[in-house]
Amino acid sequence: MANIRVAIVGYGNLGKSVEKLIGQQPDMELAGVFSRRDALDTLDPATPVLPVAEFGEHTDKFDVAVLCLGSATDIPEQAPEFIRHANTVDTYDNHRDIPRHRAEMDRVARENGTVAIVSTGWDPGMFSLNRTIGQALLPGGQQQTFWGPGLSQGHSDAVRRVAGVKKGVQYTIPSPEALEAARKGESGLSGKQAHLRRCFIVADEADHERIENEIRTMPDYFVGYEVEVNFIDEATFDAEHTGMPHGGHVITAGDTGGYVQSIEYNLDLDRNPDFTGAVALAYARAAHRLREAGQAGAYTVLEVAPYLISPTPLEELIARDV
Amino acid sequence: MANIRVAIVGYGNLGKSVEKLIGQQPDMELAGVFSRRDALDTLDPATPVLPVAEFGEHTDKFDVAVLCLGSATDIPEQAPEFIRHANTVDTYDNHRDIPRHRAEMDRVARENGTVAIVSTGWDPGMFSLNRTIGQALLPGGQQQTFWGPGLSQGHSDAVRRVAGVKKGVQYTIPSPEALEAARKGESGLSGKQAHLRRCFIVADEADHERIENEIRTMPDYFVGYEVEVNFIDEATFDAEHTGMPHGGHVITAGDTGGYVQSIEYNLDLDRNPDFTGAVALAYARAAHRLREAGQAGAYTVLEVAPYLISPTPLEELIARDV
Repeated sequence: MANIRVAIVGYGNLGKSVEKLIGQQPDMELAGVFSRRDALDTLDPATPVLPVAEFGEHTDKFDVAVLCLGSATDIPEQAPEFIRHANTVDTYDNHRDIPRHRAEMDRVARENGTVAIVSTGWDPGMFSLNRTIGQALLPGGQQQTFWGPGLSQGHSDAVRRVAGVKKGVQYTIPSPEALEAARKGESGLSGKQAHLRRCFIVADEADHERIENEIRTMPDYFVGYEVEVNFIDEATFDAEHTGMPHGGHVITAGDTGGYVQSIEYNLDLDRNPDFTGAVALAYARAAHRLREAGQAGAYTVLEVAPYLISPTPLEELIARDV
Repeated sequence: MANIRVAIVGYGNLGKSVEKLIGQQPDMELAGVFSRRDALDTLDPATPVLPVAEFGEHTDKFDVAVLCLGSATDIPEQAPEFIRHANTVDTYDNHRDIPRHRAEMDRVARENGTVAIVSTGWDPGMFSLNRTIGQALLPGGQQQTFWGPGLSQGHSDAVRRVAGVKKGVQYTIPSPEALEAARKGESGLSGKQAHLRRCFIVADEADHERIENEIRTMPDYFVGYEVEVNFIDEATFDAEHTGMPHGGHVITAGDTGGYVQSIEYNLDLDRNPDFTGAVALAYARAAHRLREAGQAGAYTVLEVAPYLISPTPLEELIARDV
């Protein structure tokens, strides 16, 4: 069987992760990277770098494109144009707008006979899958999603905007008490009680008290949360706080007549974009297979039969995993 | 929309669990229980109890049958007869024989225009799903399945066969070191090192030493494992060791170029047959829907799009869970 030829659109952290991960897949090859830039420092210098404006002219070179683009404006503006020409997978993560995005991609994909899998990654993505399955199994149960321990880009950006902060990061950490309560099916610990926000800051000592106060009183981002502000030296910061760890938990617990049944899905990720990319790539396989099977339209992860994301043939999966 | 009418075949622990759980489902009703016995002490005395020999004559009364039968002989012998007449879901758990069972059910289902979902439950079932998805996301990773902490029926039966044992149970417990190693993606701790076997026994004191020795030296069941034998009084046994707790972990960890990504799916079940029944019932919904959509044949959980098991309409799932 010929390899699945994967194109990457966009070459930020996610695009670089996907490029690296294609090499770990037994049945895929990298067809090229579409970018607005002329030259990219790709892992393999022989990788074709193609102008993203000419995407539609190169569709003979790849089977599916992984859209490694931002959710703020790039995906909603550009994805409907890409799906006109080729199968796509995206990681669109603006939760409230996903129904609209899926509907728009579905319309254009059906008109053009292509397949889009939208909002893959881990949340949305693997966490969505576990929320749906958990509630289907325990329909009267309690369900909670926790994020972290992990680096929050938005909150890290917020602490870095405080005057005097030379370097700063913020990790979101689920409260151990809230996790335990969720595992027992107890409700009551809401978002702000369920997570604590831990900051590591490099700053002059004279500014520490003011910076800590400004962080703790920042509305939306920190007010109402348990907040920890740690000042550290720059060498420690550079050694320990420049990665992109993340993860989280989806916990569903339900009572089946006097008995508590608890389901927990945990991710512990050393590098967030690598795992997001791994999920997108597995669903790229499914997009290609759905198209090969004559399908057209847009799908969320909820709509894709799980064996379609595996490189292993179904018969082997049934013999090995079931 | 009319409720899905569910029939139960067999009325042991699993059948009773499914009966109870149908009442928790927003879109299901119990059509009746098929049994070899004439009278059953069902939850609702008005529930029709029907002779299992007349299964094929009552198919106008239900949409899908949950086969709550043993895997040793009942399911392989009887399921192909049931699927001739109606959609079925089973929890067939003889892992090595699942490919044959699925193929046989698929053949008969296609001939008769019915839908079978085979080998649901948690292992096989939810654990199968997580093994397949974990390996698809991290194809070069390490994956391990751990069982417990939980009551093992087979091992409890084995300790009860030792002379002088009045009452006895055996819990299988994953080794904490093996769990930690698996989370880090380290291989090396195999089945026997990965679990310990904890027994609680009621027996005359004069027999303790001999009983413990016979348990520890029992081939297949205990030799090679870390074994703990606890003698307790009968009142403690009756108060603490008559339930059916179980659970386990599927852990997949892979290296994405210097970064460890770890995926863990955990079940902590107060009552094993209740959760097995909950999974079977969710897939009964999918079997009915697949048939309504014109499908015929046998499916494992790997082949069913996840939204099909949820009582919530797809549009609501996309807006709520994704």
